[in-house]
Amino acid sequence: MKPMKMSRLYAPTLKEDPTEAELASHRLLLRAGMIRKEAAGLYTYLPLAWRSIMKIENIVRDEMDNAGAQELMMPIMVDADLWRQSGRIDAYGKELIRFHDRHEREFVLGPTHEETVTALVRNELRSYKQLPVNLYHIQDKFRDEFRPRYGLMRGREFIMKDGYSFSATQESLQEEYDKMKAAYANICVRCGLKALPVVADTGQIGGDTSVEFMALADAGEASLVYCDCCGFAADDEAATTKVPVLDGPGNGVLTKIETPGVHSIEDLAKFLDVPENATVKSLCIIDAEGNPVLALVPGDHELNDCKAEHVFGEGYRMMTDEELEGFGLPKGSIGPVNLPEGIRIVCDATLEDVHSWGCGANVDGYHFIGVEPGRDFTADEWADIVTVVAGDPCPHCGKPLSAARGIEVSQVFQLGTKYSEAMGATFMDEDGKDKPLIMGCYGVGVSRTLAAVVEQHNDENGIVWPVSVAPYEVSIVPLDVNDELVWPAAQKVADELSQAGIEVVIDDRKERPGVKFADNDLMGFPYQLVFGKRAVKNGCCELKDRATGERVEVSIDEVAEKVAGLIRAARA
Amino acid sequence: MKPMKMSRLYAPTLKEDPTEAELASHRLLLRAGMIRKEAAGLYTYLPLAWRSIMKIENIVRDEMDNAGAQELMMPIMVDADLWRQSGRIDAYGKELIRFHDRHEREFVLGPTHEETVTALVRNELRSYKQLPVNLYHIQDKFRDEFRPRYGLMRGREFIMKDGYSFSATQESLQEEYDKMKAAYANICVRCGLKALPVVADTGQIGGDTSVEFMALADAGEASLVYCDCCGFAADDEAATTKVPVLDGPGNGVLTKIETPGVHSIEDLAKFLDVPENATVKSLCIIDAEGNPVLALVPGDHELNDCKAEHVFGEGYRMMTDEELEGFGLPKGSIGPVNLPEGIRIVCDATLEDVHSWGCGANVDGYHFIGVEPGRDFTADEWADIVTVVAGDPCPHCGKPLSAARGIEVSQVFQLGTKYSEAMGATFMDEDGKDKPLIMGCYGVGVSRTLAAVVEQHNDENGIVWPVSVAPYEVSIVPLDVNDELVWPAAQKVADELSQAGIEVVIDDRKERPGVKFADNDLMGFPYQLVFGKRAVKNGCCELKDRATGERVEVSIDEVAEKVAGLIRAARA
Repeated sequence: MKPMKMSRLYAPTLKEDPTEAELASHRLLLRAGMIRKEAAGLYTYLPLAWRSIMKIENIVRDEMDNAGAQELMMPIMVDADLWRQSGRIDAYGKELIRFHDRHEREFVLGPTHEETVTALVRNELRSYKQLPVNLYHIQDKFRDEFRPRYGLMRGREFIMKDGYSFSATQESLQEEYDKMKAAYANICVRCGLKALPVVADTGQIGGDTSVEFMALADAGEASLVYCDCCGFAADDEAATTKVPVLDGPGNGVLTKIETPGVHSIEDLAKFLDVPENATVKSLCIIDAEGNPVLALVPGDHELNDCKAEHVFGEGYRMMTDEELEGFGLPKGSIGPVNLPEGIRIVCDATLEDVHSWGCGANVDGYHFIGVEPGRDFTADEWADIVTVVAGDPCPHCGKPLSAARGIEVSQVFQLGTKYSEAMGATFMDEDGKDKPLIMGCYGVGVSRTLAAVVEQHNDENGIVWPVSVAPYEVSIVPLDVNDELVWPAAQKVADELSQAGIEVVIDDRKERPGVKFADNDLMGFPYQLVFGKRAVKNGCCELKDRATGERVEVSIDEVAEKVAGLIRAARA
Repeated sequence: MKPMKMSRLYAPTLKEDPTEAELASHRLLLRAGMIRKEAAGLYTYLPLAWRSIMKIENIVRDEMDNAGAQELMMPIMVDADLWRQSGRIDAYGKELIRFHDRHEREFVLGPTHEETVTALVRNELRSYKQLPVNLYHIQDKFRDEFRPRYGLMRGREFIMKDGYSFSATQESLQEEYDKMKAAYANICVRCGLKALPVVADTGQIGGDTSVEFMALADAGEASLVYCDCCGFAADDEAATTKVPVLDGPGNGVLTKIETPGVHSIEDLAKFLDVPENATVKSLCIIDAEGNPVLALVPGDHELNDCKAEHVFGEGYRMMTDEELEGFGLPKGSIGPVNLPEGIRIVCDATLEDVHSWGCGANVDGYHFIGVEPGRDFTADEWADIVTVVAGDPCPHCGKPLSAARGIEVSQVFQLGTKYSEAMGATFMDEDGKDKPLIMGCYGVGVSRTLAAVVEQHNDENGIVWPVSVAPYEVSIVPLDVNDELVWPAAQKVADELSQAGIEVVIDDRKERPGVKFADNDLMGFPYQLVFGKRAVKNGCCELKDRATGERVEVSIDEVAEKVAGLIRAARA
């Protein structure tokens, strides 16, 4: 490939920050002339971003192929009948784009392809001898988000690698799943992403049947906890641990005390002169079936919405003030002892070993201390319902957890037989019996990975691409393209690098040095070679490392070899 | 890349020809386990076909990049407002897939992207200094065909490379257009396609403003004429030439003769004892505005529907028997002399220099000979309205044309300012004035190219891939995988070839030799290396050239080097 001339490159940069962009990735990709919006949630990848996307795709491909998966390509248009067979058509909701063809047959634009791939194999994977099979494609996906935003992070059309494995046994599924998990970790590393494999909430009890790879970034929508010590990581919605709770005041002797002006846990802890986590918080809930529930959690922890859904049902909610009054519950002084009849009591499992609780007395202005569960009230259920936070002990090694925010860039998931059973995709096992295929599904958000890379790799001047996914690896910046020494020297090095297989852009524009420096920094090429008049006269140019900002003078005769070496070492 | 094991390859072959497949490409791609139908006009590319598609894409990419075009990626979902701006939304008809998002905003699935790309550049290509720019992407396209068929040839979702150039001047457009035309010719050659650049009907008067590349194949939907001598080629709808017409009988003396039983040109030529092309055929037409027209064409040529539309308007038709009667026109004896009043006369331009016509006399059972245009009747218009056929003279060199059928695999087109004017995409020219961008558009049917390659490269045993687009370049066929000499020898050669960068599949299945030969022939890998027990004992294997069927024994020690050499020479 010949060096790309910056004057011909279609990369219209913006001087000002676009007002609609909240995230660094959105803002910088727009400013650097890498993406443009067509409509809400729909973006064009301009040539620079598209080069990076293709590199990410090739990294994904390489890892998939090495893990024994095979690439194919399924249609984007999916016959809605397949979605009826799986039962997803109505469950998916308004994010699913549906339309009718000219013959009034219904189709959907695939947001994922479980149905298509299951239909594809259901008459052709017939024997256990053919299994396992692992198939993937890299394709535009569609989700009609209610409020698309954050540029590439949450679009309506986005690029995804989605893959599906078919196994005869759970052990084989586990093997495919583990291979994919390892490949996904490699993909993150090779793209330059610091990411954590996070145990995801699958809505099921059971071990590691789904892991999300979370790129750490303040802009992430997910909150995580992780352990620096043993490597454990989990979405705070899925993390479970025995959070440490102190025994409360009162030495286990049930005592009603007057607590004037105490309406919150903070007030109570202060009043009792104990830490907040030596108190118990009462939450009044209407569960999904409309029944009242009192939920009790450690004073310094919050009810976790996702876990609460599993216990109280989808659609559970907090009681209104009117409902509290109706049940005779005095706001700010509620607790499990002397609770009006008909209210179920659910306690966070962590409280099971805690004694001498301090909590509301169900009389305005009064609390109990020394409450003993079992003696003073009976819990209907002990359940894991709180959000794990930084400082809580790691469930694996007990060391304190850290908290972070993350961008979900990929996910592996053990589907089991959900789709194969619903769609009749069976194989004949060794024992001669027909059984449903055991499936896994594996997704990488390719365009989201690009955005996540920019979130992690930028500074006040622009993007700082890792070599592995940089649109070009080196930019050559002759400061005066009309100078009879500067231009030929710059061009010679550009050609040498190109011939060495390095991807080079040469800034041949007749712009001021300041403009060139700003644009090259904004676009974030990993190495810049600056050719100024004085240096060239001395047989030198300046090598700038975009990431560190370091600049060194290098002999023009040696610079191509030196830079090619740096880049080859940094490639994924 | 390691050798692919046939036992793991997802390529379910079919023993029987699928009944729905009329074309060789459709039949063979299904049988070889390369494509599968999801729904009408929607196909999955299984791993083998997908490898070939990616190779075609990379050939396209390489040629585009060499020609200075830049790859990007626009969304598949296109805001319908853009299509309203261009005026295409209603003009496109039912082939355009339209739907509303959850907020009731209308979108289309892009069949091409003139609107999107024009909107993309309209605020960013502002100066003549930025021009020309040539942008392309490779993407799934959507056309809701009334009757999708022929497998990949006419699908509803298909892969296309579509590109668009923006110029300041017509000369610059011509340059981009010529570069694209040259690149497209290269793409055909590199994919192994015998194709002709055919001047297409653009519905405009003017020179070469559109060329279609037609892969020659009996299965093609287009009929072409071409000149073996000078290289001229045209769709028969667009070809124009002075077709040779003989002067008729009667020496220019208008004579009415009784012609009992003469109802066709064939009858008339026989009766007059002249060739058919010494007669003139009369066609009675109702034009698009409902007015009667008599069209006169050389007796041995046919009215061309496309040309006729330009003259008579879209929706013109032949008169019914009732209409003929109503106008007093006696079927089988109609002509321009003594024509009832009010009927326009349009003659094929070719007849302008022809004398002494033989044609109907507008009296049942009578014809005229010796008819002289101008003297005996007055033509209202001379126009090019016939289909050029094999044997007609080449319009460039006069040598006889040949006829063939073709598959349109790509097209280049000078759009001019149609979209830029409609959508307000202007640039400031050197003279300081705002002018609309001058556009070209360029499309390659990628999936159709795959089908066309198979149409041209197959035999009774299956597909015969050209090396450049073969899914794998070599298949290694050990006849007995349990043999202690055969298997290690086969594996050694497979590894050697892989290490040399050759794409290898190894048929490790425990199948009979006949099954292996049949499958490998069907899948069409260019070279097969067969490892039989006896040959291996002698230190040899058999090298089979799929295209020629030639088999030679080659020493196992030398075969990898030899085959790698053959393949490197044959790669595109």
